[in-house]
This record gives sequence, structure tokens and C-alpha cells, in this order.
Amino acid sequence: MADPDLLRTALVDVVGERGVLVPGVHDDRLATYAADWRGAYAGRPALVVLPSTTDEVAAVLRACAAHGAAVVPQGGNTGLCGGAVPDASGTQVVVSTDRLRAVRDLDVANRTLTVEAGVVLADAQAAAGAAGLLLPLTMGSQGRCTVGGVVATNAGGTGVLRYGSTRALVLGLEVVLPDGRVWDGLRGLRKDNTGYDLKQLFVGAEGTLGVVTAVVLALQPAVRRRVGLWVGLDSLAAAVGLLGTAREVAGERVTAFEVMSAPSRAMVLDHVPGTRDPLGPEHPWCGLVELGDTAPDADVEALAERLLTAAAERDQLVDAVVATGPQLDALWALREGISEAQNHEGPSLKHDVSVALGSMADYVAACDAGLARELPGVRVVAYGHVGDGNLHHNLSKPPGTDDADFLALAPRLTEVLYAQVAAHGGSISAEHGLGTAKRDAAAAYKSDVELDLMRAVKRAIDPDGRMNPGKVLAAS
Amino acid sequence: MADPDLLRTALVDVVGERGVLVPGVHDDRLATYAADWRGAYAGRPALVVLPSTTDEVAAVLRACAAHGAAVVPQGGNTGLCGGAVPDASGTQVVVSTDRLRAVRDLDVANRTLTVEAGVVLADAQAAAGAAGLLLPLTMGSQGRCTVGGVVATNAGGTGVLRYGSTRALVLGLEVVLPDGRVWDGLRGLRKDNTGYDLKQLFVGAEGTLGVVTAVVLALQPAVRRRVGLWVGLDSLAAAVGLLGTAREVAGERVTAFEVMSAPSRAMVLDHVPGTRDPLGPEHPWCGLVELGDTAPDADVEALAERLLTAAAERDQLVDAVVATGPQLDALWALREGISEAQNHEGPSLKHDVSVALGSMADYVAACDAGLARELPGVRVVAYGHVGDGNLHHNLSKPPGTDDADFLALAPRLTEVLYAQVAAHGGSISAEHGLGTAKRDAAAAYKSDVELDLMRAVKRAIDPDGRMNPGKVLAAS
Repeated sequence: MADPDLLRTALVDVVGERGVLVPGVHDDRLATYAADWRGAYAGRPALVVLPSTTDEVAAVLRACAAHGAAVVPQGGNTGLCGGAVPDASGTQVVVSTDRLRAVRDLDVANRTLTVEAGVVLADAQAAAGAAGLLLPLTMGSQGRCTVGGVVATNAGGTGVLRYGSTRALVLGLEVVLPDGRVWDGLRGLRKDNTGYDLKQLFVGAEGTLGVVTAVVLALQPAVRRRVGLWVGLDSLAAAVGLLGTAREVAGERVTAFEVMSAPSRAMVLDHVPGTRDPLGPEHPWCGLVELGDTAPDADVEALAERLLTAAAERDQLVDAVVATGPQLDALWALREGISEAQNHEGPSLKHDVSVALGSMADYVAACDAGLARELPGVRVVAYGHVGDGNLHHNLSKPPGTDDADFLALAPRLTEVLYAQVAAHGGSISAEHGLGTAKRDAAAAYKSDVELDLMRAVKRAIDPDGRMNPGKVLAAS
Repeated sequence: MADPDLLRTALVDVVGERGVLVPGVHDDRLATYAADWRGAYAGRPALVVLPSTTDEVAAVLRACAAHGAAVVPQGGNTGLCGGAVPDASGTQVVVSTDRLRAVRDLDVANRTLTVEAGVVLADAQAAAGAAGLLLPLTMGSQGRCTVGGVVATNAGGTGVLRYGSTRALVLGLEVVLPDGRVWDGLRGLRKDNTGYDLKQLFVGAEGTLGVVTAVVLALQPAVRRRVGLWVGLDSLAAAVGLLGTAREVAGERVTAFEVMSAPSRAMVLDHVPGTRDPLGPEHPWCGLVELGDTAPDADVEALAERLLTAAAERDQLVDAVVATGPQLDALWALREGISEAQNHEGPSLKHDVSVALGSMADYVAACDAGLARELPGVRVVAYGHVGDGNLHHNLSKPPGTDDADFLALAPRLTEVLYAQVAAHGGSISAEHGLGTAKRDAAAAYKSDVELDLMRAVKRAIDPDGRMNPGKVLAAS
């Protein structure tokens, strides 16, 4: 980085004094951009820039290129792997999408929503909902995370089983490239085979190839009738079987299929006021299956009963309750309270793994055996999107033991899980991405050919290695 | 290309004498690899190689690399844009996937099918069907096209509305890279965010980045109950409106939504024996809407009636019939007979365009006006996947006029359509790809930034430009 003062002057020329935050001058405001929302990752930015338009982003990136400065794109800063946080060098420029907040277009006939990257996911959901349509990306951080961040991390959430991950919903992108050129790929087409599908490069690239500034999202028909089943299961294998039955009976109307281990449910009941497990603690796993129909007069309760009958015939569940309205919301509160509840039980070791559906039960059993050898009594707070083969396979210390002892064992416990992920052909980051947190662990499990291909893509689009260096791939 | 004899010897070492076809020696067998299935594109291969395993493909590509030979990957050779045909230079080596025919794995619990590239699509469908599951890729060429070709062209077909294009169904790939290294990305995971999603590079790249040798496909629950609606529509706008109503009433159970202009229906009735239009010729457009439910006891006829009632309330259709079983098959025969019927009416000018759903009616009206100026009486044989915004916007000469006059005007007529595609933000190849046929036309409508990005991707993966040169992008 040639001269910080010259770069600052150049950026102020683009976005004005109020659009550039400078260390030592704006430290209070700067702090929220230097660390992630949870406070798990912190760095030291050279500057934070707040452009308001795509043209300003382009001019900012041209200035950074001219001065050889590295760029860290940042959305709502809710990522779990440190992908949007600058490093500690004090040389990286954070380019925030906070001011890119326009809803550019809502095309009801085409069922598409075009928004700028800084639009908060919940606001995008609301814009779609106001037109009677559904933006089916649904996740815990939706009140703060941005559409740009969701795209950059190919975020998942609880609607993936029915609607796919973010990638499946992105029809078009506008991206500012590392050299400041703008790629206008904002097409609202469901089919376009005119060459390489360039938007796929940027979805899930975690800002290492460019800055996503606007997105065309495919909307879905609104779900008008919902019903939930809370089921007691004696194994994960039963959950996978029940998933198959649910898809046979209800097809794509199976909106979500979540599971929760007994320890994860117990923690919620202990720490989140007002929660209740309708089936009690004796089931090693409980499932939350949501069915949803678009037709306002659909009899989803009858659909749920048909599913229960078919599942009972196949011995796939031990007990079940059916819920709608506020009762269904209460079941979701139980599921969504796990992350918060686990924080009350000391440090939590978080993992986000996926394996093929048929391997899930084997994978978890193998992990249980390995974990018991390393730390008897460790609590397996496993929960998540079993419908996608995705478990948040978190761990908490045995009750009454020391935090420090647990943390000292943490790398070894993670190793036990990751070795089983590899043995079962799975992924150590199903939906959270790599950032810096999982970059090296992922590289350890990838082939040389795969890493070479990733590096070739990086070099092709960002030859100087200035876009979010050190994220996804080690800086070269 | 250094020395053809040395290359031939090297390839015979890999696949044996019977696996290498040589011009002047095996001309009869060679002919089917030198031209596409329709006979629209023909070239002159240096050699045709028929490897039987991924290792043999790798060794073949290493030999081609060592001898500086260009490689043309070829599947069922049914592509419509010349993407799998060698050029006329006599220097390109066709690598056929004919002998890569193994079904490697059918994982019922995971709902995935792993097949080698040369498996014919219909055989892959049958393998899934034997396990009670559905491979929802459905297209006219399915009895001959291969899974590898389907992946390489990101093929569409009649199930895209419900299930997405090929890209949406590919979970993993095995690819031999231009230098002969093998990328094993054959994972059967629905979620994997560990870095760049490399498989996206190869889906739809038309063999310009490597040879796809095996694929993991996501299967769907079988559709057990089907019903079709044949509807008379007074405009394309009505079709788009009806599509929205259908998605509200039936959600994802809308499997297909096809339209046919009056001239296209008339040609089928004239030329395909046994066809009948249940509504007669007075409707400018007819639609074929198929609803399908996975549950064996689903009352799809009642669902169809609910859709008709809702559509009638919104004045979206003029007339309709409901059909199941053989009657529904007969409606599909009417739809699928168009391509053959058009061949009886002289030369047909084929286009495969997409625009945003809300723009379709405007787009077609603007084209009609332009076409009438260029060639009064031209017959617009427009039909296709209106549910995806995709029309096969074909043209036939006015009755009783000369083929030669029509063909002389062809470039101008195509220009009229493509100008309107551009004006409406659409695509000139929704599902057929570029090959050589549309390569330059697509380039003319793309921005410099977009073309630069495409070339950067090509250089990154195929730095010597030996993979299917001249397809998708002009050879550099």
C-alpha cells in the first residue's frame, strides 16, 4: 500500500468526508466494521468506506487498485467464519454495503426482486411479501444480514429443502470487479445458456472475486397454509426415513425438516423462558417437519394426518403432535433457541457439517464413539437441517467441568468430527462458508487438483490478490 | 499438432486398436462422429478415440496435451448448435464418451444417482425409476442424448419449471482437465460451502474446460398422479397470468407449462398422423399445463378443477379440457410433434429465446410487427416452455413461396428477433447453448466486461486453448 493519506484523499473524493471512517478519528463508528457482530473475529482496517451507489463502489475499487490496497467487502457482518472482517495489518480497506439500500425493482409478473447488496434480508422478504410473493431465504440473522452477504456466502437456512440455497434463487448479479469495472449481469431470466454462467463464480465466493452490488432474486408463490409436526424419533436413521415418506406424501410441500438432539432441547428448556417440549426428554431426537401449501383453502392438517399414518405404518416415529398457528411458532422458537441456550452452558464448539442422507446416522454414531473416548460426558448439541443432510454438530462441556479444560481439548474434538466427515465423504462447512476460520481445515481435506482449480479461478478474476485476501484461500 | 502418427500410436497404447478410429481406415464408423445427429454440422476429425474408463480419458488427454492436439468431447451428438462436432481442419481429436456407460451408484436414501457421462438419459431415467424415484430431466432427445452432454450444455426440457435446469440437479462431477488430471468432485451433498463451487464451471461449458466423465444427480420423489389441462388462450399475456394462478393454486405441483401458437398446432395436425387439437384452431395460443402429485391417492382432477375455477374468475382462459392417461399423452404428442411437423413445411428457422415472463407478450408482439415488415405471411411457429420464459421462436416460409427466397432472408429475420431479445433484456439461447452456431451472435450482445470474464475463465482452466476450441468463445 503506497501512501495511506493519498488513498484516503482519493476515497474522500469519491464518497465525501462522511463516507470514509479513519482510525484515530472515527474510532467509535469504526469499531462495528472492525469486528464481526458476535465479536468472535476482530481486525484493524486501514479505512472504512461507505459508498452509496454502484458507481461509487466502482470508483472506490479503482482507487484501491491504483494504490495497491486490499479490499474487504462487508455486509451485515453476521457471518460465522470471519469472512467479512479485515486482518490485523491495518492495511485493508473495508468497503461496506451499508448505504447500498435501494430496492430497484419488484416485477410481480416475472416473480423477481432486484435489490442492492446492502438491503437487509428481512426488508427484502417484506418487499416480496407486500406483493403477495415469498422470498424463501430464512435464517436466524435475517434481521441484520444483508442480501449481498447472503449471496457472497451462498447462505442456507431453514427453507433449503424446498427452495434450495441462495444460489438456486439468484437469477442475476451486478458485481464490481477488483479493477473497478462493473459487470452488469442483472438479468431476470430463468434460463440463459449463452456461455459460462458467470454469476455462479461470485455466489459463495465470500467477496474474494469482487463486490456484489445488486442481485435479482427469484420469488416464489406465498405459502398460505402451514402445519407443523413435532415428532419423537428413536434414531437419525428414522429421521431420514421419515423425510423420504414426507416427500412421497407431500412432495415439495415439505418446507422444512429439522432435528434436535435431546441435549439441545434440554438446554433450550433450561435457558429460554416460555419454551416447552411437547413430547418430553426421552426421545434421543425430535424432528420438526413443516408442510406448507400455496392454496389458501388447502387442508394441510389432513395432509399432516396422511403423513403420520404413512410414517406409523413404516415404524418411523415414536410419538407426534400436530401444530398450527401460535403452537407452530412455539415449536420453531424451541428450535431457534438452541444457539442462544448453548451460550449459557459455557463455551460451545460449533461445527456445520453435511454428509449424504444415508450416511448421517453412521456418521453421528462414529462421532459419538470418538468423542466419548476423548471426553466422556461431552454433550452433543446436534441440531439442524437434516432434510439437507446438514447438522450443526455443536459440543458443550460435561456439566460441572472447567471451561479451560474443555477449550484445551477443542482442537482434538473438532478433529474427531472432521475425520468422520472426511470418512463419510461430507463437508466441514455445509452453509457457513470458510472465511478465515475454516480455510485451512478445508484445504487439508481437499485434493491438490481441487485447490489448484480454486487458485486458478482466484488468479483469473483477481490477479493481484487484493480482494478479501486470506479468505477462502490462503493469501499467496 | 506435432505428428499425427505418433499421437495415434500413443492413443492406441491407451485404448487399444479398436478404440481409435482413423480417417481413411474406419470412415464408415467415423462418419457418425464427424457430424451431428441431424446432419446440420459436419467436420473432419484427426482421430476419434473411445476410452472406456476415466483413467483412459485421463491418459488420452495427457497424450493429446503432449502432442498439442485439440480435443472435442462428444456425447450423443444431439446438440443443436454444433458444440460437439470437430471443425474442418482435420487436426482435432474427438473424444467420445460412448464407452463410459456404467451406472456407478444408486443411493436411494440419499436420492442420488451416479452415472458415467456416456449413459443415455433415458437409461438414467430408467435406473432412477426402477428405485421408485424420478430423474426429472425430460427432453425430446432423451433416447439418444447422454448425461455428459446434458451436463455440458446445462440442458433444459419440459420439467424445468418444477425441477430446474440440469445445473439444479447436479450435485457432483468428475472431470478430466485439459492436462489430463482428474478432478474428483463426485460428492452427493446438497450443501457444501467449502470454497468456490467448481462444478458450476463445467456445467454448461460445452466441453471447453474439460471432459465430464461422471455425474451425481439429485433424484426426486416419483410423480404418481398426473393431470393435464389443454387451454385456449387469447394472448401470451393470458398464459403468463394463468401460470401465476396455477402456481398459487397448485404450488410446485405445476410440472410443466407449455404453449403453442396456432401455426405450430396446424402443422402438427397436417403432418403427424393421429393428432387432434381438442379445442380447434381459433385460439391464437393453446397451453398445456401438467399438474403432478407424488402421493398415489392425490386427487389431481380436483386440483385441476380448482385451477380452472380460479383462472375463469380472472378471465385468463377462453376454453379448456382436462385429460389424464392416454388422453394426456396425446396432448404431449401434439406438443412434441411440432419440430418434426415443421420440417415438412420447408426450411425452418430455429430460435431458442428467453425473456422475463412479464415481457413475453410485448416481445412477441414487437417481433410479429418486425417480421411482417420483412416477410408478410411468414409463419411464426412459436412454442415451448412459457413457464420458464422460454420460447422456441421458429419461423417457416409463407405457404407456396420459394425455399431459396426464404433462406436468403433468414439472417435478416433472425436479426429482427435478436434485436427484440436484446431490447427486452432476454437471451438468444435459453437452453441450447452456443456451440459454433450462436457463438458470434451471443458475443455481439454481450458487454466487453462479460466477454473478458468468460475469456479469463477459459484461460484459467484451459490455458493452451485445446479444449473444444472455437466453441462458446472464438478461438484466440
